[in-house]
Amino acid sequence: MKVGKKAVARLSRYRDALMTFKSYGVDRFYSWDMASALGLTAAQVRKDFSVFNIEGKKKVGYSVDALIGRIGEILGKNKIQTAVLCGTGPLGKAVVDEGLLTGAHVHLIAAFDDPGKKNGKSTFGLPVHPLENLTDFVRDNKITIGVIAATNGKAQRFLDHLVLSGVRGVLSLAKGDLKAPRACVVANINLARELENVMYFVNNQQKRAPK
Amino acid sequence: MKVGKKAVARLSRYRDALMTFKSYGVDRFYSWDMASALGLTAAQVRKDFSVFNIEGKKKVGYSVDALIGRIGEILGKNKIQTAVLCGTGPLGKAVVDEGLLTGAHVHLIAAFDDPGKKNGKSTFGLPVHPLENLTDFVRDNKITIGVIAATNGKAQRFLDHLVLSGVRGVLSLAKGDLKAPRACVVANINLARELENVMYFVNNQQKRAPK
Repeated sequence: MKVGKKAVARLSRYRDALMTFKSYGVDRFYSWDMASALGLTAAQVRKDFSVFNIEGKKKVGYSVDALIGRIGEILGKNKIQTAVLCGTGPLGKAVVDEGLLTGAHVHLIAAFDDPGKKNGKSTFGLPVHPLENLTDFVRDNKITIGVIAATNGKAQRFLDHLVLSGVRGVLSLAKGDLKAPRACVVANINLARELENVMYFVNNQQKRAPK
Repeated sequence: MKVGKKAVARLSRYRDALMTFKSYGVDRFYSWDMASALGLTAAQVRKDFSVFNIEGKKKVGYSVDALIGRIGEILGKNKIQTAVLCGTGPLGKAVVDEGLLTGAHVHLIAAFDDPGKKNGKSTFGLPVHPLENLTDFVRDNKITIGVIAATNGKAQRFLDHLVLSGVRGVLSLAKGDLKAPRACVVANINLARELENVMYFVNNQQKRAPK
């Protein structure tokens, strides 16, 4: 069965809710408990779980621990994957220093950027290499994931290098929609666009508000 | 008609495509031109446009300039809105220095944080105020939008202050899903979760790949 991006995105939310259940000492739950925790319908929860071959038992429900383990397996979180960071400017620093990726079971092991002052040194705890060494590094270290922390013209160039190096998935904070061949999954996060959406709903609310 | 979040998100993409059309000297287009530029169906494009009362003409199509203007109006982008930034750490710096919000027609006019060394000074080009002054500032400057650049326990506190101050929309980079009353729109960007989604698709690709 083809699994949609939204179902996968909900898996992370299910896991967060499960951790909360666990912290409250809850060890079993029903689909409607989860639905109510996340503002979904119980039917949606059951459908998602069935897509991922997660089964509950009648009158007993789902086991919190079993489900945490199963979702971890599905998300590939039971093993930590190594990744590289492209971009050593303020955004790269923020990603590392503020732990923006913490919780995703990804271990950033090096940063890459255009040749410059930082080369061969380390910045915010990561060794910095010139972009031209990326291909060898990715191959030697079996890297599958890249994170692009650059918003200027560099970003597409970083992505091209990552894809050529054999990286299979990229999270990009560049503002534009970067293009990659189908063999590489790219998630483009565009904060300006997200903010526009917020502004739309704010402006719309105000128009609807009674005067 | 109720307008969905996804339709609004597509509006920004339509506008980006229109700017590209314009840069190529194109002044009119059909729904299928837009569909092909964005990987959508022509029916989807026509439906979105009709939801927002955007009309084309038979055999003539849509006017690029008129549509750029209309989408700008809808997104409230023809006037610049003022906003405040909450959080003056590395993430706040990255948001400003890397221009992550540029293009959204939002003008950040001040930063807020817990009382500390930066108080009364300015950081990355913004004056910094203590959080306790937020309510007065928002009221005096008619601020409707807030941006939260903090990922630790501070974020929910920042949001609570923003909402109490009357802010109507918030973009948050905190990792958790912050909670606000319905009167305030909150877009939560969770990079760790986005990265998990990428990892899922990468792991899934690999399993499917021939051995």
